[in-house]
Amino acid sequence: MTIAAIAASAGVSVPTVSKVINGRSGVAADTRARVEAAISRHGYRRAAPVTRSNMMELVFDEIEDMWGLEIIRGVERVARQHRVGVVLTEFGPQRNAIRYWIDDTLARRPDCLVMVAQLDAEQHRLLRARGIPFVVFDPTTELPEDVPFVGATNWAGGRSATRHLIGLGHRRIAMVAGPEHVLCCRARLDGYRSALEAAGLPVTSDLVRHAGLTDADGRAAALDLLRRPDRPTAVCTGNDLQAVGVYQAARTLGLRIPADLSVVGFDDLPVATLVDPALTTVHQPLREMAVTATELALALGRGEPTGQVRLELATTLTVRHSTAPPPA
Amino acid sequence: MTIAAIAASAGVSVPTVSKVINGRSGVAADTRARVEAAISRHGYRRAAPVTRSNMMELVFDEIEDMWGLEIIRGVERVARQHRVGVVLTEFGPQRNAIRYWIDDTLARRPDCLVMVAQLDAEQHRLLRARGIPFVVFDPTTELPEDVPFVGATNWAGGRSATRHLIGLGHRRIAMVAGPEHVLCCRARLDGYRSALEAAGLPVTSDLVRHAGLTDADGRAAALDLLRRPDRPTAVCTGNDLQAVGVYQAARTLGLRIPADLSVVGFDDLPVATLVDPALTTVHQPLREMAVTATELALALGRGEPTGQVRLELATTLTVRHSTAPPPA
Repeated sequence: MTIAAIAASAGVSVPTVSKVINGRSGVAADTRARVEAAISRHGYRRAAPVTRSNMMELVFDEIEDMWGLEIIRGVERVARQHRVGVVLTEFGPQRNAIRYWIDDTLARRPDCLVMVAQLDAEQHRLLRARGIPFVVFDPTTELPEDVPFVGATNWAGGRSATRHLIGLGHRRIAMVAGPEHVLCCRARLDGYRSALEAAGLPVTSDLVRHAGLTDADGRAAALDLLRRPDRPTAVCTGNDLQAVGVYQAARTLGLRIPADLSVVGFDDLPVATLVDPALTTVHQPLREMAVTATELALALGRGEPTGQVRLELATTLTVRHSTAPPPA
Repeated sequence: MTIAAIAASAGVSVPTVSKVINGRSGVAADTRARVEAAISRHGYRRAAPVTRSNMMELVFDEIEDMWGLEIIRGVERVARQHRVGVVLTEFGPQRNAIRYWIDDTLARRPDCLVMVAQLDAEQHRLLRARGIPFVVFDPTTELPEDVPFVGATNWAGGRSATRHLIGLGHRRIAMVAGPEHVLCCRARLDGYRSALEAAGLPVTSDLVRHAGLTDADGRAAALDLLRRPDRPTAVCTGNDLQAVGVYQAARTLGLRIPADLSVVGFDDLPVATLVDPALTTVHQPLREMAVTATELALALGRGEPTGQVRLELATTLTVRHSTAPPPA
């Protein structure tokens, strides 16, 4: 699709389309909207940027704990090898910073973006219209089919955690799951259910609690589960911090880990080896995911052909000392 | 100092000086060196950059755990308010990346830098020669008197940790200190010694161990201290991870915290509230330090007058559950 065709479709001049694509001012808001709609409709994409800025952007909603740090380090390392600078942005709780961010990003003309933050369809379109490719890191929602992403095999991870517990002899296995609206948390929960089902164990909502992804949330959910008369002998969790909360709940109730209660985390952040006993957890290959997302985004930015642009990297179970056979 | 005067001093033309200052190519290495030496000698600094890039750089040697993350978030937040993009660099273990980094940074022409990494005198001069101001974050070595920095009151922090233990009745207080060559660790250790001295307690090297800043290092040092016949009843540490190592050593030896042993950390990272019992620790105001360093660097980048450009922000003791009176 040429710029001329987009200009014709939007009923504007070629220079006007060019201004919109290049993020320059001097275009009325409604004209700009019409051009962007035409671009979106016709799928114009620059073959490759005319001049490369040797800059890329890494964008977070909130940089949370070690999870965010692993991503930053992975992205920065790859970008540095390519001698590309990484501009880091955290939207923080005030999401109204986003409009400014789009303007400032367009002014910087980055070669590509890695988005850990969630952008809406409108923002996707704005980036598209400027021909700036982006890769979504570990999507928390379903993405349109043409959006590249790099995630992890969350479903398989939830499944392997649960199978490990079943293999140890557990039959009453609970799950402190993350929020229902977060895609990876839903996948982890479904993996847990799938493993129970495959082992012929009952799948009951009595043994599942949805909770936020903090240790305090994990603690509250675990107290609720562990105070039941038919107490579970093992708990799967949505992330490592929730698992730390389960440890706290177990201490409150005088339960020993793993003698009285087995616990499995998810992510394998450094905290997993700092707690006592060291946490059995599903390792999420955050560094490799960051490397893959960055390589992919940079290739898209260079206009190079890429292979698969929507992929999940494998999780692996790391067995430490928080899991054991159930009490006799 | 004018460019003409520098040119005369170095015995080169004005355009040559201009090329060196603006990081352009086409200057022989020895000529460049001569110009940089002249600039360094005469202290030329641009009044303000001609055009601002609205970019700044944040540079780490290694981004370690939550410590690094707090700094990143603080810097990014302030820069975003100023609508300045933050380019993040981590040198990592291969320090030979630095020469490239200098070249790439000069090409990006940032308005200013916040350096968590340590640069040598040569690199300082290179930045100076281009009139790019920088602020050193939490210096680990003594800096020349004209280098702006933002640190924390490490000496006072070590002192308040030790006074807290003395106030609880402890008399045999050990210290797992950080490496001797790290300035903040030396200051923390001296604060510990100062508090002992002020209380009329003996200051003996028997009770001090130097160790790396990881939990494994802290564990090894603590095992050595706690296996002495005249076991200390309290341990100060160089950082929170070392304190986690002391927890591990105490468990190995069957000592309860705080009934048998009191422990104080340093930094107040999130891990302090995740361990059991929650750690009493010296709070280092990392976020505020990052905010201050960034505001200062941006002001220097705009060529604005600034107040004090070499400062330490106050630490505060956060008392949690790892300290108690010594066993009777």
